[in-house]
Amino acid sequence: MNAPTAPEFDAARVAAATAAIAARLPALEWITDSRVERLSQDFYWFSPVLKRQLEHLRAHAVVRPKTEDEIRAVVAACAAERVPITVRGSGTGNYGQCMPLHGGVILDLSAYNKLLWCEGGVGRAQAGIRMMEMDRQTQPAGWELRCVPSTFRSATLGGLYGGGFGGVGSINFGPLASTGNVMGVRAMTIEPEPKTVELRAPEALLLHHVYGTNGLVLELEVALAPAHAWLEAIVCFEAFDAAIDFADALAHAPGVIKKSVTLQAAPIPDLLLAATPLLKGTMTPGSHAVFVLVAEASEPALQQLVAEFGGRITHRKTAAEVKSSNRTIVEYTWNHTTLHAMKVDKSLTYIQSGFEAGRHKAQARALRAHFGDEVLTHLEFIRTKEGAMTCSGLQLVRYRSDERLDEVMQIHREHGVYIANPHVWVVEDGKQGQVNPDVVATKMRFDPAGLLNPGKLRGWAERERIAADVAAGRVSLATLPSF
Amino acid sequence: MNAPTAPEFDAARVAAATAAIAARLPALEWITDSRVERLSQDFYWFSPVLKRQLEHLRAHAVVRPKTEDEIRAVVAACAAERVPITVRGSGTGNYGQCMPLHGGVILDLSAYNKLLWCEGGVGRAQAGIRMMEMDRQTQPAGWELRCVPSTFRSATLGGLYGGGFGGVGSINFGPLASTGNVMGVRAMTIEPEPKTVELRAPEALLLHHVYGTNGLVLELEVALAPAHAWLEAIVCFEAFDAAIDFADALAHAPGVIKKSVTLQAAPIPDLLLAATPLLKGTMTPGSHAVFVLVAEASEPALQQLVAEFGGRITHRKTAAEVKSSNRTIVEYTWNHTTLHAMKVDKSLTYIQSGFEAGRHKAQARALRAHFGDEVLTHLEFIRTKEGAMTCSGLQLVRYRSDERLDEVMQIHREHGVYIANPHVWVVEDGKQGQVNPDVVATKMRFDPAGLLNPGKLRGWAERERIAADVAAGRVSLATLPSF
Repeated sequence: MNAPTAPEFDAARVAAATAAIAARLPALEWITDSRVERLSQDFYWFSPVLKRQLEHLRAHAVVRPKTEDEIRAVVAACAAERVPITVRGSGTGNYGQCMPLHGGVILDLSAYNKLLWCEGGVGRAQAGIRMMEMDRQTQPAGWELRCVPSTFRSATLGGLYGGGFGGVGSINFGPLASTGNVMGVRAMTIEPEPKTVELRAPEALLLHHVYGTNGLVLELEVALAPAHAWLEAIVCFEAFDAAIDFADALAHAPGVIKKSVTLQAAPIPDLLLAATPLLKGTMTPGSHAVFVLVAEASEPALQQLVAEFGGRITHRKTAAEVKSSNRTIVEYTWNHTTLHAMKVDKSLTYIQSGFEAGRHKAQARALRAHFGDEVLTHLEFIRTKEGAMTCSGLQLVRYRSDERLDEVMQIHREHGVYIANPHVWVVEDGKQGQVNPDVVATKMRFDPAGLLNPGKLRGWAERERIAADVAAGRVSLATLPSF
Repeated sequence: MNAPTAPEFDAARVAAATAAIAARLPALEWITDSRVERLSQDFYWFSPVLKRQLEHLRAHAVVRPKTEDEIRAVVAACAAERVPITVRGSGTGNYGQCMPLHGGVILDLSAYNKLLWCEGGVGRAQAGIRMMEMDRQTQPAGWELRCVPSTFRSATLGGLYGGGFGGVGSINFGPLASTGNVMGVRAMTIEPEPKTVELRAPEALLLHHVYGTNGLVLELEVALAPAHAWLEAIVCFEAFDAAIDFADALAHAPGVIKKSVTLQAAPIPDLLLAATPLLKGTMTPGSHAVFVLVAEASEPALQQLVAEFGGRITHRKTAAEVKSSNRTIVEYTWNHTTLHAMKVDKSLTYIQSGFEAGRHKAQARALRAHFGDEVLTHLEFIRTKEGAMTCSGLQLVRYRSDERLDEVMQIHREHGVYIANPHVWVVEDGKQGQVNPDVVATKMRFDPAGLLNPGKLRGWAERERIAADVAAGRVSLATLPSF
């Protein structure tokens, strides 16, 4: 499906209106030169399907506000002129999440980035704060973010909330949406006279993971994790079974404090070794590798488990060594694995999946046996929202055709593995096609004119039916804020 | 089974030898007056069976050394004179663990109690340190013990290692024996010329949970937990199912930082209310109560779950309030529940059990339906050594006869629930009767003359067979230390 057209957002009209808004707000930082192209894109090109469908998309201008007043001015003007707004953090997502389907303004929040406070294990920041920067500011007090993507260096907290699911740390705290992780958000309505509202948990999750399509998040208040001194290690195994059994046992081991456990089955370690000279000597070629972050105090326990499962530690850096080198193995996990592998082998793409807790090892073995070289096993161990240990897969797939890619995903589903399809750009299509009435109802309150990247949320077209269903009591919503 | 007699430890000879040793070591703190009775006992009387069998037991003297040299002097003398040694912490156990079967010397380690160091999430202390005192010293640096019994106020770290399983905190870190919790122990051999040796994990667990019968532990090095500001709350429910579902969901919830979740089914809350005026108003009479400790930052998440399951928070104290009041609900959980309930209803005793992770709620419901008022449900949520969430039961039982008590335990086993029988005083009988060759082989090295509370470890009688089996390769042991 190619990006839509809509008479309502006629390109000439939107272009002229955008230019008028920029002219009317000269104090703001506007970008209208060749950088607009880069700032209209993310890592959508991980998917050969999205690459074909989305690569032509461009905003008419990018604005980079520094204060809430500046944000309000842009929002008010866009709402008055019916100009689409696409919210952007650092653009490290890989689903075309922040690519504007109908041009208009890219609202780049990366300069709206202050840590507001950190106290008692909770931190509050403006949406555009980079996660590495937030950790840098809170770690001296003993706290850090509960989960971060491998792109933590540049990615923003608002971006994680808007487009992310979880990441490094989810092995302890589950996905970001688990009860207790997000305490509150401050959001702004997209109206000629924008209102702001504080949503506390659980309502604070109403704008989560819908890519900024149902509201504009200004600030986030999140529960933090104790900041341990993290030892980084890579453990290599000759046999896949030993590698996954070790990874699973380590992930479960209650006495081992850990931050991440990643299984990179052969030949992924070879792809990573080929991708960068920085990894030279860190893995045994031909092996299956498990990347781990454990608290330094847990190193003897790690060694004990490595010995039990017959692995070999081929890389080890203390927290101090990691810090002084400014390099971390985290940047070879999650979708950084995909990025590096694709540099080496252009035929690769990927899928994202969630295994069934308890059956996850058996599912991984069965799928590996089924696909052979076509699908390379990359698993991240995480807890589910309900606290069960399982893994999330970011399998590398040798791309043959769109049809075969669909088949590969369907075969995963037939094995009981959930697929978060990263080859679609409509929000609901990445979530098994389900329209979520809560999401649509939230958008009706926060974005009544439907200006937040119009076309991305399929459920918006059904808003009248949903409103009628709610009014008639046929659908019950999560408690929505009133303001 | 009554406590044994053994010609080798003829009471008159042991009494005379003990007196001679005390006379030879006058600089040490010896206790030979009426306090010997109390110091020869623990909370064995929780069991009507043990009460009958063990209440007559007395040591001939108690010694309370302050240094390793003093310990060495006592041990050397006892070994030379073949006087039994029974190691004691604070005597808060409830299995007659530290009650001397053949008199001799009680080696009371409560004055050997220094914190040696605390660094990078690891602490090392002398065995007799009280757990509350260790926490008091390490908490300013942000660390505390990973699991403590409800008797943490007086109980010693060595006592937990020697006679304990886990406790408050095991919901995160599993039992003390989970890989990574115990880093090392320093132990002394019971010989005329005692040797000391450092055992590192996993060998550090060879002397764990056998009640000081196979070696004398001097120092312990344990991994610590981040010390959060713990909020204490009691949540009351009208229905048992809602209470257990809430407790289980809270225990699992990955985004809620917690230290303990305890389910006290009706009528236990009423028993606790009757036991002490201190609890007045903290629980709804007639209700099922869940006692919880969560990080203060997790309070909104707790409230959210309470609302979801239809509970009511009837007691709430912040960490500062707990500290200033010097009272904690922890002292109404684990075997403190048993203690308080028995004060009110003299017909009660208890059992200890381990539920099967995943089936634990169903098992608890089935057993509750089976027993009605005869067995009162008290569950502590913990992780297993392998990291699965489950619960440990300290059910209160209306005592009718020894035979019925055995039947009650057998019915639990038939429901798939593991029983750690607290009505037996032989080490192996509390562990399904199995002789553990590792434990016996360890005792052969650390206590070659069999002086550590002789008679308590049944496997000791089989030491020659075990040694022969090991020599012939018929039994393989965990790696034992050589020295």
